[in-house]
Amino acid sequence: MPVVPQNLLNLNSEETKKLFNSFQTILVDCDGVLWYDDQQIPLTSETVNALLEQGKDVYFVTNNSTKTRHELWLKARAMNFSINESNIISPTYSVASYLKAHLLEGKAYVIGGEALAKELTAMDIEFFGPGPDFIERSLADTVEMVDKETSEGNIQAVIVGFDEHFSYKKMLRACNFLHNNETCIFLATNDNAVVKYPHRSIPDTGALVAAVETCVERKALIMGKPNRAVADKLINEGLISPEKTLMIGDCVKTDVVFGKHCGFSTLLVGTGRYQWKHVEKFLEMKLFQYVPDFYIPSLGDFKQYL
Amino acid sequence: MPVVPQNLLNLNSEETKKLFNSFQTILVDCDGVLWYDDQQIPLTSETVNALLEQGKDVYFVTNNSTKTRHELWLKARAMNFSINESNIISPTYSVASYLKAHLLEGKAYVIGGEALAKELTAMDIEFFGPGPDFIERSLADTVEMVDKETSEGNIQAVIVGFDEHFSYKKMLRACNFLHNNETCIFLATNDNAVVKYPHRSIPDTGALVAAVETCVERKALIMGKPNRAVADKLINEGLISPEKTLMIGDCVKTDVVFGKHCGFSTLLVGTGRYQWKHVEKFLEMKLFQYVPDFYIPSLGDFKQYL
Repeated sequence: MPVVPQNLLNLNSEETKKLFNSFQTILVDCDGVLWYDDQQIPLTSETVNALLEQGKDVYFVTNNSTKTRHELWLKARAMNFSINESNIISPTYSVASYLKAHLLEGKAYVIGGEALAKELTAMDIEFFGPGPDFIERSLADTVEMVDKETSEGNIQAVIVGFDEHFSYKKMLRACNFLHNNETCIFLATNDNAVVKYPHRSIPDTGALVAAVETCVERKALIMGKPNRAVADKLINEGLISPEKTLMIGDCVKTDVVFGKHCGFSTLLVGTGRYQWKHVEKFLEMKLFQYVPDFYIPSLGDFKQYL
Repeated sequence: MPVVPQNLLNLNSEETKKLFNSFQTILVDCDGVLWYDDQQIPLTSETVNALLEQGKDVYFVTNNSTKTRHELWLKARAMNFSINESNIISPTYSVASYLKAHLLEGKAYVIGGEALAKELTAMDIEFFGPGPDFIERSLADTVEMVDKETSEGNIQAVIVGFDEHFSYKKMLRACNFLHNNETCIFLATNDNAVVKYPHRSIPDTGALVAAVETCVERKALIMGKPNRAVADKLINEGLISPEKTLMIGDCVKTDVVFGKHCGFSTLLVGTGRYQWKHVEKFLEMKLFQYVPDFYIPSLGDFKQYL
């Protein structure tokens, strides 16, 4: 369905205010929208706090699986965002919550880092896996060991999150646990493929998920954007109404597509990889799923209208 | 295009002989057709040697990247197959040959094992990569190191083969080398996803390729079946005529599809994962790309007709 995106730079102050008043809930992505690593993007906390003061419901919705929800909250507080911890939606927390509800017996095998481990521990979920884990003797010995673990370990879930210690041995484990047990839960925190810095490329969780999905011949349930499962609970419990909700993000494949999956309006900010010229390009190429309803160079540019 | 497969069990001896006489070239897959690991499948060497004595051109075409072509030949000789080394087509050898022709300067980065390293060494190709390679200090330090390597290393090719030491650090290297250099050659030995033994699942090269392809946002050139590139040289040099060639294999996705890509006739043997009942199933599901022209329970069953 064709979309006509609006560049908010072309609206006057009254029109922009009116537009904002039409939303009750604002979902905001974090990396590239509120901050870059440890550097806050100018005026973003002032904007978010003004929205909160106006009585809007604001949620931070990130795909970052290297921090727990609590750590994200501490970071946000340190940057003066007046957000509540329970209004932060992070995939490590979502995975732990899902397992709390669905892993009725047995253990989870975790490809992932410290943050995922902390969230699972906090919810008393039995798991193993994080940390370095490589083939030290022969492949044959390792296969033997994994075989024993598979038959005796009662492993009922396999989770994939960002893991700098990802290895063939971890793939071997996941592969056998999942092939051996058709009802084994298979979750991933997110499927972002790569993080691109100006001169560097960091493989992201999606690349690890692709490896595991290929050898296990199954698809993981993705607990991150753009999967609408991320917002299902809020929608189902009536906490947010899609038609009164705006999703703000810097990534079209993750944030804009997520907003569309959920029936939200979408606003692209130009502080990430995409600017207005890309929006025009997507329109031209008829890639309507990437075309947001609105565009603004930076979230901080809002402050003047609030 | 619908195919009517013939179960050779339903043909008489004369009909089968006549059928065989219509082919000049016979391509045979190895694992699951000639042998399982170190165990030969009964009567397969007698069958192959009888074909050679009748003047047929026989090629062994494997996707196995854990052995060099020479090692495969030694194994075949030890099992009494009278095949020439030059009639064995293996992906480690194909990758090395491709690089010999196309890597005009710089080094190759290799995710892969000893066999790939030996083939490259034998052809005097400069490379690095095989063996254990994990993040020992922090991710940030490793990123720094890979960044330096990327800008100073003159890396002009990235190869992915089977590697039990596959790791996040290897993905990080491949990702940066390929993103940094648009003309960097990107090859994979094969894309088989998983090897299934009765009770075990071994992730295969295809799962490693999927991980690297996802984070580099490029597709590798696959030097194994079912890519017709495997046979292009033989066809282009007039060494084989597709219409007089039979491809024999045990795997529909690899061997049967490969045969169809090349315009060969195809024969499925029942010594792998697929038997006649599966052929009937594929027909029913209209998965014609998986339906061979002919079926026989084992390659050894041929011997009686030769």
